[in-house]
Amino acid sequence: MDTKYQTLRAELIERLREINDLHSAAAVLEWDQLTYMPPRGAEARGRQLATLQSHAHRLGAAPELGKLLDALEPEIAHLPPDHDDAALLRVARRDFERATKLPSAFVAEVANHTSLSYDAWAGARPDDDFARVRPFLEKTLDLSRRYAGYFPGYAHIADPLIDRSDEGMTVAAIRPLFADLRQFLTPLVQAISARPPADASSLHQHFPEQIQREFGEAAIQDFGYDFTRGRQDKTLHPFMTRFSWGDCRITTRFDEEHLGAGLFSTFHEAGHAFYEMGTDPAHDGLPLGSGASAGAHESQSRLWENVVGRSLGFWQHYYPKLQAAFPQQLGGVTLETFYRAINKVEPSLIRVEADEVTYNLHVIIRFELELELLEGKLAIADLPEAWRARYEEYLGVHSPNDRDGVLQDVHWYAGLIGGSFQGYTLGNILCGQFYAAALQAHPEIPGEIARGRFDTLHGWLRHNIYRQGSKYLTGDLVQRVTGSPIQLTPYQEYLTTKYGALYNL
Amino acid sequence: MDTKYQTLRAELIERLREINDLHSAAAVLEWDQLTYMPPRGAEARGRQLATLQSHAHRLGAAPELGKLLDALEPEIAHLPPDHDDAALLRVARRDFERATKLPSAFVAEVANHTSLSYDAWAGARPDDDFARVRPFLEKTLDLSRRYAGYFPGYAHIADPLIDRSDEGMTVAAIRPLFADLRQFLTPLVQAISARPPADASSLHQHFPEQIQREFGEAAIQDFGYDFTRGRQDKTLHPFMTRFSWGDCRITTRFDEEHLGAGLFSTFHEAGHAFYEMGTDPAHDGLPLGSGASAGAHESQSRLWENVVGRSLGFWQHYYPKLQAAFPQQLGGVTLETFYRAINKVEPSLIRVEADEVTYNLHVIIRFELELELLEGKLAIADLPEAWRARYEEYLGVHSPNDRDGVLQDVHWYAGLIGGSFQGYTLGNILCGQFYAAALQAHPEIPGEIARGRFDTLHGWLRHNIYRQGSKYLTGDLVQRVTGSPIQLTPYQEYLTTKYGALYNL
Repeated sequence: MDTKYQTLRAELIERLREINDLHSAAAVLEWDQLTYMPPRGAEARGRQLATLQSHAHRLGAAPELGKLLDALEPEIAHLPPDHDDAALLRVARRDFERATKLPSAFVAEVANHTSLSYDAWAGARPDDDFARVRPFLEKTLDLSRRYAGYFPGYAHIADPLIDRSDEGMTVAAIRPLFADLRQFLTPLVQAISARPPADASSLHQHFPEQIQREFGEAAIQDFGYDFTRGRQDKTLHPFMTRFSWGDCRITTRFDEEHLGAGLFSTFHEAGHAFYEMGTDPAHDGLPLGSGASAGAHESQSRLWENVVGRSLGFWQHYYPKLQAAFPQQLGGVTLETFYRAINKVEPSLIRVEADEVTYNLHVIIRFELELELLEGKLAIADLPEAWRARYEEYLGVHSPNDRDGVLQDVHWYAGLIGGSFQGYTLGNILCGQFYAAALQAHPEIPGEIARGRFDTLHGWLRHNIYRQGSKYLTGDLVQRVTGSPIQLTPYQEYLTTKYGALYNL
Repeated sequence: MDTKYQTLRAELIERLREINDLHSAAAVLEWDQLTYMPPRGAEARGRQLATLQSHAHRLGAAPELGKLLDALEPEIAHLPPDHDDAALLRVARRDFERATKLPSAFVAEVANHTSLSYDAWAGARPDDDFARVRPFLEKTLDLSRRYAGYFPGYAHIADPLIDRSDEGMTVAAIRPLFADLRQFLTPLVQAISARPPADASSLHQHFPEQIQREFGEAAIQDFGYDFTRGRQDKTLHPFMTRFSWGDCRITTRFDEEHLGAGLFSTFHEAGHAFYEMGTDPAHDGLPLGSGASAGAHESQSRLWENVVGRSLGFWQHYYPKLQAAFPQQLGGVTLETFYRAINKVEPSLIRVEADEVTYNLHVIIRFELELELLEGKLAIADLPEAWRARYEEYLGVHSPNDRDGVLQDVHWYAGLIGGSFQGYTLGNILCGQFYAAALQAHPEIPGEIARGRFDTLHGWLRHNIYRQGSKYLTGDLVQRVTGSPIQLTPYQEYLTTKYGALYNL
């Protein structure tokens, strides 16, 4: 590498780190807002966040950054595309294009509108009042269409919106995948519904918060969560956040009357954290040093929550510990009853409470409605009814109100319409593929899990997925790691095997 | 007000708020670093803070800001100097001058050096190794002299350094005040030392943290701490921090084997918070909307910690509650014994553990040593010995090591030399004056305190001091509020009365 190249590269890294510092600072302020901030701190906090974001956006769209990227382009032309520097330039270029294609006035309009829209939703949801959010949602749909317009050349109007969270994915790729998945899930859910329902009453007893916390934190420490590089705090809607390679935090909520809620939320967010904690420390503060996409990230939260955390093998080792922590509540409950309880399948109205099998139908409904809205086939005014009809058709459940219907998720009220949901189900599909590849490489993994050992699995994931950060597009990552493009089969086989055994199908 | 004026004024406010947003964001990151951050988050956190501070400094020294201040100058010429807009312009001008007079290279050199110096100190102090910090301290002294050089025209080289935290105060004003105070304190300490020592053993029992916390938080809520605009968290070295008018937080530490430590730290930091919580919400995010100076701030922390929190009247009401909280520990300890214990006077080595009477001698020693270093009369190499000699002379105690001597306070190792300590004793003096003025206006205050009522006192302080923010220089504020310039008499009378009664002098 020549000196000119090294100088340009050092300048690029300096600029990218500065942008990242501002985003990380904003992440700390957001974390604080959702965990510890006293109520009346909210007003000024909004202003502080807006200032940080506007400074970050200005740096990210600076013409000097564009010139630097242009100057580096020929310098890296001879590098293989999976060289770190080539990948860095690709991702930096992508972020720069996104920042410069959107006029600041539009960015400000979206920020301002979504803030008002969120407030309207927060007030309207408890009152079950869709009419109040309707005008906001109509404007959101208009803004979402305009967003797409800044990225001409797309095949489907939702593609630029999907690209924000799942880069490289398109409607053309996702639609058939989700159609196949639905075709697989519908008979599976029907077959399960025809069997005697699992008894989940053991989960609905009184479980003191402190003991739940200690058990959950001990378990994720066994998984490999590094408490010198993170911590767990309480919040309303759990999330994971990364401030740096050395500080990847998770949040959770506890329900003392329902054991599942807090425990699996802890496992889920820990899975997200493993991805960030497992990135290359040399990429800290650079756009390479973070998970590849929403779907790739979700594959890891789902893997640790469901594939590990809801497996029979895991509980063969941990259930005696859980019984020791809650002797009165679980002393008389067998492992098998408990295992069936935490894997009970039952069509329901609320996505975030759904089981592993029906969950994807919730997501597919939202994905389809997003496309229809963006395509102009569905009007906001008709959305509540479309939501209800789709739930009856796909899940066989009827929502008596909008609060638990179209008003249940924050996504459309606090951001744009399009690209908000597909990552959840892509994550499940990828999780199936990645886990199958891990098992192929290390057939001993299930046996280790049943002995409370996770090193082989965690190590394989870190080596193949986590340390890559966002060096590869998700599709390329899947190809590299599993030898195939994204495909449903491993996930279907996982569900068939697990739920076939659980429900004697 | 004409339109041009309103436009300029709005632009100034917008610029000042943006600077404040960045400082507030940095304050959140610092708070997090000192309360919850996992250990390995430190490295990136330092970089994030440096980025925020450099952005804030750039905005604060922007030529456009200077032009705006110039353009506003004639517009406000007709306003009385205590008009809010005139005061805002004065303070904004002061901050701009400070930001522009210091070259960025010098600011960066200081930041870089003090960070290294702090690390050296943190390692050297446990090892009692002054030699390791000596070269750092020599450079710090050099930087401190250079700092003063950027503000030519001073009467004493320490004046520009003092001006950073106690604007308007000078060596010429402080030196005689401290000399008089020392002359008053020395015989008082001698007289007390000649009496039988108070028995403080009741404080050194086991006091569970959670009960300490609940008692302290209930007490400061009675004082007027608004938990919808603040919270208390644990840290190593307690501090108060303001993120906005709606978010003024305190921190504390608990020692389960010593009741006094946590309780009075909570009262102390709450006093700082009352100042910030009591500022005018219209000034939030502007340089007017914060306490006037280190001394003025310390007057309030001392007032609530000592004048209220260590008074007999306060404990007449609260001691039965404290006994109920700790029945085994305090059930057999009389109010009088407890009151004597929390006000025990005893010359000692450590400033932060010193009692109300000897505390000022610790501060005066540091203030004098700072001046001698800056004047070139004392070399860093001779500082440990000078420290020891001064402690023997002023307090009659001998430090067997440097760890509890010249290495005990972080100030000189994490910042410049000069202006670091005078605020603590100025605060005690101002506290005496302010409290005397409050009593003159409302002689019913002590009676109310003895009934657990603090509204009159808190209301008087808020109206006369807190809501003014930094509108007045501290000297002018004292003149306005008490009708006199800064003077010792009220503080001396307070000490004489309180400790005369306690020690039968």
